[in-house]
Amino acid sequence: MSTSQSKIDYRICFVGDSFVQGTGDPLCLGWVGRVAQDAVVRGINLTHYNLGIRRDTSRDIAARWEQECAARLPADCEALVLFSFGVNDTLIFEGVQRVSEEESLANFQNILRTSSSNYKVLMIGPPPMPDSTHNRRVERLDKQFSELAATLNVPYLSVFEVLRKDEHWLKEAIANDFAHPGQRGYERLAGLVQEWPDWWFR
Amino acid sequence: MSTSQSKIDYRICFVGDSFVQGTGDPLCLGWVGRVAQDAVVRGINLTHYNLGIRRDTSRDIAARWEQECAARLPADCEALVLFSFGVNDTLIFEGVQRVSEEESLANFQNILRTSSSNYKVLMIGPPPMPDSTHNRRVERLDKQFSELAATLNVPYLSVFEVLRKDEHWLKEAIANDFAHPGQRGYERLAGLVQEWPDWWFR
Repeated sequence: MSTSQSKIDYRICFVGDSFVQGTGDPLCLGWVGRVAQDAVVRGINLTHYNLGIRRDTSRDIAARWEQECAARLPADCEALVLFSFGVNDTLIFEGVQRVSEEESLANFQNILRTSSSNYKVLMIGPPPMPDSTHNRRVERLDKQFSELAATLNVPYLSVFEVLRKDEHWLKEAIANDFAHPGQRGYERLAGLVQEWPDWWFR
Repeated sequence: MSTSQSKIDYRICFVGDSFVQGTGDPLCLGWVGRVAQDAVVRGINLTHYNLGIRRDTSRDIAARWEQECAARLPADCEALVLFSFGVNDTLIFEGVQRVSEEESLANFQNILRTSSSNYKVLMIGPPPMPDSTHNRRVERLDKQFSELAATLNVPYLSVFEVLRKDEHWLKEAIANDFAHPGQRGYERLAGLVQEWPDWWFR
């Protein structure tokens, strides 16, 4: 960290679904709380807003992100927004996929294009689920998101493959609620964010 | 905790200002994260949403709480909302109090009346500041809020006097940014909430 970085008034909105909220973490931090703690301990003047909501799809996020971020990011701060969603889009509910692939990509493009014209923006892809059929759809969406992010010049971190092979993520999810990891899974994801060359506070 | 309590899907929105957000806490938990952790460790199935925003007055909160809570509290969960605000209303900015006493009380009544007809609601009063002139206004507003809450049948916890005499709260605030405490101040406030007979997870 440079000396000047400790004086900047950084404010981040983390916008997404239950994995952003940190559902299942007994420490009530999730990966978001862990990366915020790490930055603060290193002297960065950071305020973090966790705007993850359980069951949110890209459609839900498209409807709320702009207003919720505007309320939290005044003009005189260094305003950062990190998005992460996708798992709920690909969920089959009562026989129908909650959000079609076509709409997911349109929402993604709309959210990232608008946000990145106002804020510094990063996107983290959807994590794996302990269900191979669901996972094929998550993996496919992750690849499409990644390609679309490149055309929009928004840095995108795919975590699907690393977490699928992680020794804790899927085991914890199975032991928990068949969706969300526990402490070790969230620690691993926090680590992936912190090692990412595009992360703001390396 | 009763056995049945561990099965209920509790979701809480904590709505307020920077003291709710946990500004100044090196652990990035604030009192909100601490009371959530404590409930989860004791086996309560709790999802917590921290909707504290720095600099928010009762006017700002009146404008956003309903939409932000509705997005987070589905009909099939046990929906709880806890409010805490007031310090920013009584701040003098460019020679003028940010929100007049009359408007603060009107906002308070409007927020608590509407929310308590849809959710279980609690309110925690504004904490003290390391500025005796500002504090006289905070103390006065806290008393008025407390009386108004009683007429609305919303449980209200006044923390002003206890935290003013706390050995850490104001010291940490002075050492920090002349407003927000650090780790020990937030621990103390978390303790006051947990000892409160009206707190949901005693």
